[in-house]
Amino acid sequence: MRVLYHSLLSPFARKVRLVLAEKNLDFTMKAEKPWERRPEFLALNPAGEVPVLIEPDSTVLAGTDAIVEYLDEVYRDKLLIGINAVDRAEVRRLVGWFDIKMDREVTANLVGEKMLKRMVGEGQPNSQAIRAGHANLPHHLDYIGYLVDRRRWLAGDHFSVADITAAAHLSTLDYLGDVPWDQHEPAREWYARIKSRPSFRAILADHMPGLPPPKHYADLDF
Amino acid sequence: MRVLYHSLLSPFARKVRLVLAEKNLDFTMKAEKPWERRPEFLALNPAGEVPVLIEPDSTVLAGTDAIVEYLDEVYRDKLLIGINAVDRAEVRRLVGWFDIKMDREVTANLVGEKMLKRMVGEGQPNSQAIRAGHANLPHHLDYIGYLVDRRRWLAGDHFSVADITAAAHLSTLDYLGDVPWDQHEPAREWYARIKSRPSFRAILADHMPGLPPPKHYADLDF
Repeated sequence: MRVLYHSLLSPFARKVRLVLAEKNLDFTMKAEKPWERRPEFLALNPAGEVPVLIEPDSTVLAGTDAIVEYLDEVYRDKLLIGINAVDRAEVRRLVGWFDIKMDREVTANLVGEKMLKRMVGEGQPNSQAIRAGHANLPHHLDYIGYLVDRRRWLAGDHFSVADITAAAHLSTLDYLGDVPWDQHEPAREWYARIKSRPSFRAILADHMPGLPPPKHYADLDF
Repeated sequence: MRVLYHSLLSPFARKVRLVLAEKNLDFTMKAEKPWERRPEFLALNPAGEVPVLIEPDSTVLAGTDAIVEYLDEVYRDKLLIGINAVDRAEVRRLVGWFDIKMDREVTANLVGEKMLKRMVGEGQPNSQAIRAGHANLPHHLDYIGYLVDRRRWLAGDHFSVADITAAAHLSTLDYLGDVPWDQHEPAREWYARIKSRPSFRAILADHMPGLPPPKHYADLDF
């Protein structure tokens, strides 16, 4: 059986869950607390980060891009990284936008500060980082709106890993109630389409003990 | 003609220069100061970051991974991202290691603080960040040593974008004289092999006005 090491509010682990679900690939999840630095986990991924995927043939895959590219290359029934080189470049440009730029400007500042510090016991969240995260988020919602004003999905006509990556980050922020949907209608309409996909059901059912999501989190009509 | 928008101490732009050179693809370089946010440059890449590559057929490519994956897919005489899916996963895992983990822990703290703040005029470098960068660097040099103790190149038998990525980051740090080569012989031996490659000549000839590199920077026997 395929095994995914994940943590619940890692946007990177969520991305791999969504890719596996879109491709109808079965998997079991194991919750990992990367900050505990378990030797057995470090042996799988010396970077000490989730996600890590163990394929049914025992191939160990670590690193979000490495995992997603591998899955899209090996399981080709439904391609999620574009159908030609130029399309793929656009998907990967946007993956970088959300996984690097938005993560640095928003997700790390909000989910990282609020949740990871809480779980790791690293002390109080940095209020300056949280303010920066809130201040930076509208720019990314506007960019999603700009894109879907011109295209059906973020990278073009086809649903792709670009949509999955953006939704993975936004879903962790939405779990904390941090997304100002009311002021970003085009992004909300796009996210509503994502939320209604069968692949998203497990994400919407996520529940952290002691920290339930806001009511609208799982609501398709939010 | 192919045009690369770059800046001299961006490890990401250096990576694309090295990939182009390894593939014997001609290109012209245009120096961009991303922090000036030129509208014409933002039209090419809304993220406002180098590298951006304009292909001879006018295809605009932005985002380091997007550019490198495109080049490896389209110009296949010499593959730099592995020859099968498992090899490619290992190359991409290590690309993520150096471009995300090492960049966050080292390059951004040293090159980012020292150079970008100087160029952008954003004030004094953050001395805490610089201390963290120096403290984190040996771990990455040790990891390179660990890998080349077991393999000919970082990702396996073949020279790959994993080597190029690590060398791109180390070359910017080395330009500032920040790499403690004396205490990391295996990493030095690997970097000496990289430095002697024809693709690296242009990198070793880099010279920033007012900030010359240390003497050993271009020395193949450093």
